[in-house]
Amino acid sequence: MTKTFANESEHQAFVAAQAVMPQGFRAGTTRFEFVPAEVTKPAKMNLTLLVADEPTTNFAAVFTRNAVAGAPVLIGRQRLAQERVGAIIINNKISNVGTATGVADAEAVCHAVGQALNIPAQAVMPASTGVIGWRLPSEAIVQALPGAVSSLSAGSLASAAQAIMTTDLYPKARTATVGGGRITAIAKGAGMIEPNMATMLAFVLTDLDVPRAALRPMLAEVVDRTFNAISIDSDTSTSDMVVALSSGKVPCPDLAAFEQALHDVCARLAEDVVRNGEGVHHVIRVTVKGVPEAAWAKAIGKAIVNSPLVKTAVCGNDPNVGRVLAAVGKTIGAAGWPLDPRQARVAMGGHAVFANGAFCLTPAIDDLVRAHLEDTELYTSKGNAEGMFYAPVKYPPHDRCVEIEVSWPGHATDVVIVGADLSHEYVTENADYRS
Amino acid sequence: MTKTFANESEHQAFVAAQAVMPQGFRAGTTRFEFVPAEVTKPAKMNLTLLVADEPTTNFAAVFTRNAVAGAPVLIGRQRLAQERVGAIIINNKISNVGTATGVADAEAVCHAVGQALNIPAQAVMPASTGVIGWRLPSEAIVQALPGAVSSLSAGSLASAAQAIMTTDLYPKARTATVGGGRITAIAKGAGMIEPNMATMLAFVLTDLDVPRAALRPMLAEVVDRTFNAISIDSDTSTSDMVVALSSGKVPCPDLAAFEQALHDVCARLAEDVVRNGEGVHHVIRVTVKGVPEAAWAKAIGKAIVNSPLVKTAVCGNDPNVGRVLAAVGKTIGAAGWPLDPRQARVAMGGHAVFANGAFCLTPAIDDLVRAHLEDTELYTSKGNAEGMFYAPVKYPPHDRCVEIEVSWPGHATDVVIVGADLSHEYVTENADYRS
Repeated sequence: MTKTFANESEHQAFVAAQAVMPQGFRAGTTRFEFVPAEVTKPAKMNLTLLVADEPTTNFAAVFTRNAVAGAPVLIGRQRLAQERVGAIIINNKISNVGTATGVADAEAVCHAVGQALNIPAQAVMPASTGVIGWRLPSEAIVQALPGAVSSLSAGSLASAAQAIMTTDLYPKARTATVGGGRITAIAKGAGMIEPNMATMLAFVLTDLDVPRAALRPMLAEVVDRTFNAISIDSDTSTSDMVVALSSGKVPCPDLAAFEQALHDVCARLAEDVVRNGEGVHHVIRVTVKGVPEAAWAKAIGKAIVNSPLVKTAVCGNDPNVGRVLAAVGKTIGAAGWPLDPRQARVAMGGHAVFANGAFCLTPAIDDLVRAHLEDTELYTSKGNAEGMFYAPVKYPPHDRCVEIEVSWPGHATDVVIVGADLSHEYVTENADYRS
Repeated sequence: MTKTFANESEHQAFVAAQAVMPQGFRAGTTRFEFVPAEVTKPAKMNLTLLVADEPTTNFAAVFTRNAVAGAPVLIGRQRLAQERVGAIIINNKISNVGTATGVADAEAVCHAVGQALNIPAQAVMPASTGVIGWRLPSEAIVQALPGAVSSLSAGSLASAAQAIMTTDLYPKARTATVGGGRITAIAKGAGMIEPNMATMLAFVLTDLDVPRAALRPMLAEVVDRTFNAISIDSDTSTSDMVVALSSGKVPCPDLAAFEQALHDVCARLAEDVVRNGEGVHHVIRVTVKGVPEAAWAKAIGKAIVNSPLVKTAVCGNDPNVGRVLAAVGKTIGAAGWPLDPRQARVAMGGHAVFANGAFCLTPAIDDLVRAHLEDTELYTSKGNAEGMFYAPVKYPPHDRCVEIEVSWPGHATDVVIVGADLSHEYVTENADYRS
């Protein structure tokens, strides 16, 4: 089951194989320099265009629940009422949030895309990621747009997966087939990730013919169990969105099979997002079982993966299991749920560390849990001469997770939350640079 | 108003001046070596004894809301029903949480303290802080107890404030006088700090005669606005407690004046706890105004000080104000409150950065906010040759805070939350060591 990568090329080949474009779509990218309005130093931006051969009625999208929503989110919500969507225009570098001209700037870009593709501006979905508070350079984007249009091609989403990145170390794409059709999704996101609707940005393309009325509830349900069940740093972005487009080129043989494939693609892509999170040394997968309410189980799992003390202990390969139980107790105590932590069984890497109301720690158990942490580590870090920390690899060496299970007897719920540790690399990424 | 300290001795003199013992109490400490049951390496533990000349009926205590409560918390809750309390016995190094014998171990210690002081074991309040999951070495504590008893003396709480520390860099004590009487409190706590009842451990002694019926609601109210309004890392400990004892030696002239003094002592001590938090470079004080419900204001303030992205940006003296608004929006959006972030005004260091629905960022504002961050920094860090980060000072050079204000027009609420940034020193403290 475990997948390992020996080097960056092996991982690139894997992403390329996953990035197969479904029928009926083309993608194009371009890169340009501009001077942001807020500073004097030039910056570089990638523009990515995803285009359906024919605008489709079968599209779905879910957006961040952050009450401060970016202009693309505000516009995207309106687009849901449109009959058809034919293109998605994506920029990195600036997230277009909270500026006075944000919506007008994004609409100007959509207008230009519509003209270039000969579709209505209202059939263009905008998406932005990057700095919050800066203005979208709509004129520079419109100038650069022909470069993206002329590069449009079918066959692969690999360049698009690369171009939408910001602090991501590597591109992320996942694919699955159902009958003769295909679902392929790409995502970006490495910080400000606790999606409360979707990861930073994820785009799902399928040639399977799934009508809008089925696609929309299905996407919402799948996102809730995948992208909404991950957290890198508990910070829900202002710009999260997942957009799904169906070109309808291939008849869908089985809606249930489609939903399962959509779930698999989204679950694997969501885990990719965590694995490539800022400074992530370990992916932590928490399974919470036997809790009366799924919402409680989700909160308990989130509390564990968001606890700075659990995160730092995992980072240090330190089997500090007391911090896991403390996070469980903090959550239950604050909420006042009738759920007794003393009845819980806590296991790490399959080894019970708390059971029957007490910790069952021995030097032997400690060694086993430590070995599990070492086995699931992506890399060990070392500061450079300036005291800065950078990830030494630009690919995930393996896909193993730190497995934490918290279970109560009796109930049937089973919720999985995927999070990450907290490292010097996260601090370097977010504190050691000056904006 | 600002207080600065040029070196450790200046700060020690300040703590000594604050640690004046109210009449009617004595304190003693001792230190000993023992071998924990779970490992083979010897460890050192401090034992601290706070004793009232006469057991008092006038005592109050508030405890953690973590559903996984330590044995001292379980016992302390029972002690509230006792007629009198005469002593508090405190150990560091092991928090006595989640072991099969925890309550019996703590009661054995209380029994020995009662015998040594000739008071009932039920008049002894236990308190423990340190590793979760290890057994309390009750026999070694009982053996060391005579050392603490023989050192009992009146006059100062300075040695006790020192002895209760774990990862704290320096002792914390605060005092205030009302009429001819005095309130003095000491606290420890530097990690796993988001008290949901009290900080890790805080002890308030007063010679003012305040009856139990007045003292208990007053302590609960004051703790809610002080210790319960701080967060270092969002992790509510399993062992938090605040205990207040009155010796009744001085008539209390005015209960309202006493409550105000109690608030001032607790507020200053709570801020001391944050300032001495693990790896703290900046204390962040968030004032939230104009929110219909105080609970919403508290949640918004907590979300800002607990956002890893806000914390790391502040650590880096980076005026990344977008992250502050994103944290506000995340909280409001997840809760679904009818509160519009676009109506909010956000200021940092007194400078408006978001108003009238849009960011008002300019290079000049950016410079002013950056200067405020630099001015409020406690120290800048530098990794050593091994890539480990240690605080270069063992005293707080000043008491300035990063001031963040989020306000809506109209309503009268005004909630203050005190938190801290997130630094390499926090990661070194919690990940770079192996347990």
